Amino acid sequence: MNHQPELYWISGSPYAWRVMLTLEVKQASYASHLLEASKGDLKKPEYLRLNPRGRVPTLKHGEHVLNESLAIMAYLDRAFPAPSIFGESAHEAARNWRLISEFFSYLYGPLNRIVTPLYAGKTAEKADDIRAALPVVHEELGRLERALGDAAWLGGRAVSAADIAIYPFVKSLLRAASKDAAAAFNLGILPLSTSYPRLADWTQNVERIPGFARTYPPHWREAQAA
Amino acid sequence: MNHQPELYWISGSPYAWRVMLTLEVKQASYASHLLEASKGDLKKPEYLRLNPRGRVPTLKHGEHVLNESLAIMAYLDRAFPAPSIFGESAHEAARNWRLISEFFSYLYGPLNRIVTPLYAGKTAEKADDIRAALPVVHEELGRLERALGDAAWLGGRAVSAADIAIYPFVKSLLRAASKDAAAAFNLGILPLSTSYPRLADWTQNVERIPGFARTYPPHWREAQAA
Repeated sequence: MNHQPELYWISGSPYAWRVMLTLEVKQASYASHLLEASKGDLKKPEYLRLNPRGRVPTLKHGEHVLNESLAIMAYLDRAFPAPSIFGESAHEAARNWRLISEFFSYLYGPLNRIVTPLYAGKTAEKADDIRAALPVVHEELGRLERALGDAAWLGGRAVSAADIAIYPFVKSLLRAASKDAAAAFNLGILPLSTSYPRLADWTQNVERIPGFARTYPPHWREAQAA
Repeated sequence: MNHQPELYWISGSPYAWRVMLTLEVKQASYASHLLEASKGDLKKPEYLRLNPRGRVPTLKHGEHVLNESLAIMAYLDRAFPAPSIFGESAHEAARNWRLISEFFSYLYGPLNRIVTPLYAGKTAEKADDIRAALPVVHEELGRLERALGDAAWLGGRAVSAADIAIYPFVKSLLRAASKDAAAAFNLGILPLSTSYPRLADWTQNVERIPGFARTYPPHWREAQAA
C-alpha cells in the first residue's frame, strides 16, 4: 500500500498518543488532522463516518479506516513490520499483551479516578475516591517498577508495544500529580525519580525516541511555555 | 517447542474459556489442571508462583509461563500458527483487535453489572444498577448484531480471535438472563433468536467448533443435568 496514513487525533489523548508514538518508532510519515473536541469536531457527521463512536484516534490508510488505539498499533505492526513492536517471538508478543492487558485491567481505572478529577478541577467532590484509588495505583506502579528490573524497556530489548501503550497514561498521571490541587492529597508520586526510579528512567528512554517531540501534546507544551 | 501446553483454569471463567476455545481451534492437545477457587487453589503458593495475581487462566508451555487471556491467545497464535485467529492480513488483525478493544471498553463493564448480581444472588441490592446498565448492554449487543451483518463470524471469514474473546462473556450474560431472578427486570435479552437473531446464529456457530463440548464449563453442565 503506497498511501500515506492519515491520523485524526486530539491534543492530550493518551489513546492518540499511542498511535503517534507507534508511527514515530516505525519512522512512518503520516498526514496529521488535529481535531478539537471543544469545537464539536468529534461529533461532526463527516468524522462520525470515520469513527462511529466519535472518539480518537482514527487512522485512515488507503481504503482502510481504523478505530481503537490497540487495533491501530496491531495494524501498523503488520503494515510497517520493522521494527516490530509486538516482538519477534511468541514469548515477546505474550509479554507485551500481558503488560497491556494488566495495565487495562488493574491500573487504568484507578489511575483515571485520580487523573480525571485533577484535570477537571473536581478534587473536592472526588476526594474520597482519589484517596481510595491511590493505594491501587501505587501497587500497580510498584509492579511496573519491578517488571522493568534493570531493563530499559517494559516489553523487550527495544521499545515495544507495552512501552508505547502504557507511557501516555503514566505521563497523564504525572501531569495530574503536578497540579496545585494535587498537593493536598500527598500522592507520593512526584518526584518520580525518588518514588519509582526505574519508571523515571523508563519515561526518559521513551522521551529519547527519535521524533518523540512531534508526539508531545501541543496544549501541554503551550501551558508550560505560558 | 515440543512440550504440550498445560492449562490452569476454573470452571465458568470466561477468560479461561477463551484459551480453551483457542486451543480447540488450533487443534492443540494440552494438559488440563482444573482448579477450584472455593478450595483456595488460586491462592496457594505453588499457583501464585505461576500467576502472581492468583487469577486464571495460566498457560505453561515448556519454559514459558503465561498469564492474561488475550496475551495467551496472541502467544498461541504464534506458537501454533494454523489456523490464524488474529487474521492473515493487517486489516483482519485490526478488525479483531478493534472488536476486542470495543468489547472491553464499552460492553464488558455494563455486562458485568448485570451478570455479577444475578450470579451472586444480589439483585435486590443492585436493582437500580442493573436497570442503569441494561440500555448500554443493548446498545452494544445491537452494535455486535450489526457488525455480524450476514456473516457467520465477527472477525473474519472463519472463527477468529474476536469471536473467541467475546463469546464466553455473551454466553455468561445469556446464562445470567435465564435465572429466575432475572424475570423481574424484563431484560429483553432472551430468547436471543428473537432479540438478536444474528448473534443467536453466531453463538450456534461457535458451539459447532470441533471440540467445543470439551470447553463447556463442567459446573454449568452439571447444573443443567440436575
